[in-house]
Amino acid sequence: MRIDIITVLPELLTSPFEASILKRAIEKDLVEVHFHNLRDYTDTKYRNVDDYQFGGGAGMVLMIEPIDKCITGLKSEREYDEVIYMTPDGETLNQKTANTLSMSKNIIILCGHYKGVDQRVRDLFITKEISIGDYVLSGGELGAAVLCDAIIRLLPGVLNDETSALTDTFQDGLLAPPVYTRPAEYKGSKVPDVLLSGNFGKIEEWRESKAYERTEKLRPDLLE
Amino acid sequence: MRIDIITVLPELLTSPFEASILKRAIEKDLVEVHFHNLRDYTDTKYRNVDDYQFGGGAGMVLMIEPIDKCITGLKSEREYDEVIYMTPDGETLNQKTANTLSMSKNIIILCGHYKGVDQRVRDLFITKEISIGDYVLSGGELGAAVLCDAIIRLLPGVLNDETSALTDTFQDGLLAPPVYTRPAEYKGSKVPDVLLSGNFGKIEEWRESKAYERTEKLRPDLLE
Repeated sequence: MRIDIITVLPELLTSPFEASILKRAIEKDLVEVHFHNLRDYTDTKYRNVDDYQFGGGAGMVLMIEPIDKCITGLKSEREYDEVIYMTPDGETLNQKTANTLSMSKNIIILCGHYKGVDQRVRDLFITKEISIGDYVLSGGELGAAVLCDAIIRLLPGVLNDETSALTDTFQDGLLAPPVYTRPAEYKGSKVPDVLLSGNFGKIEEWRESKAYERTEKLRPDLLE
Repeated sequence: MRIDIITVLPELLTSPFEASILKRAIEKDLVEVHFHNLRDYTDTKYRNVDDYQFGGGAGMVLMIEPIDKCITGLKSEREYDEVIYMTPDGETLNQKTANTLSMSKNIIILCGHYKGVDQRVRDLFITKEISIGDYVLSGGELGAAVLCDAIIRLLPGVLNDETSALTDTFQDGLLAPPVYTRPAEYKGSKVPDVLLSGNFGKIEEWRESKAYERTEKLRPDLLE
């Protein structure tokens, strides 16, 4: 899988891709991630990529021309499954979308910044608009990192133990049951007996009932 | 405001705090962000912070002892408004929660990793569990960065132009209207005439009606 990220702040994005699971996935060649600095696609003297919005109002808007150059250049080299724009008014990301996108071959992710991008970019180049949630961030960069993490960890071979992703919250429509590790007793607080029983049938049963209980209490909408 | 982030991967978190708005907010002393490496709170030879889960199953679980040491140490130095745990089964983050949290004085954010933390940590130390959305990430670090960005940009003085945050999507319960910038015509694609009219009454009217139209089409749930 290849992911091209277009941003005005590539430096904001470096560390999440240089640590832990994303780093390993890149080193193992399970995914290629390329950053494109939008400023490299402008030929104005000050490498401007944004301008005031028509009609007045606070906040700068990313201009269409550098984005067009960057996306058109990438598309001339290979086919892309999706050209994604990270925006709070996009389709809300969920595990199903992450699963689907993890089967793509090539995707482009455009990060908005400031007040967003010129609407014509969205009309002409974007095939999918994604929001990571109902809150506003300084730019699309953290959203892009979140989307990449959600997708990349699903690629075969990325997680050490593949069953680990399958038992995650949301993969089966339920929240995960509580987990415990050593010590069995900590300052008077004990691990539930059943987990120490060695009876795997009973343990499975307990986990399933806890997963339902927790989902019913915290996220009844997932059961509908 | 002071934010303490507890993590096993502080190196994953560096770049988002060293760029753009978060960097400026820290430099202007509008917020202090401290990273605490959980491995510094263990005295075992290999600085282990995780172990297998009781009852069997894939995925490691963060142990209670180093977390207890870290949180208890911090709480002995100052009072905290919230001790937050980033987890996909937490309360889903939205703009309202971000607004509320931005009025805190001190908060702790604990990042889960692997399969999560020992349930007793959640029962004993955590006052608020937050999810950034219905998808699974490799750890709580990106969620913590997202939460910090959503909060910090709301602190007075962080954004250059304060009206900029107030007109964002979600702040007034509506998606933002489309924005355009120069050039007025790009490869035959034009900016709507009204935005070039100079008639600010008409422009406001157009923006409001577009904001409603867009919300009705894309996120009717926000209008309910």
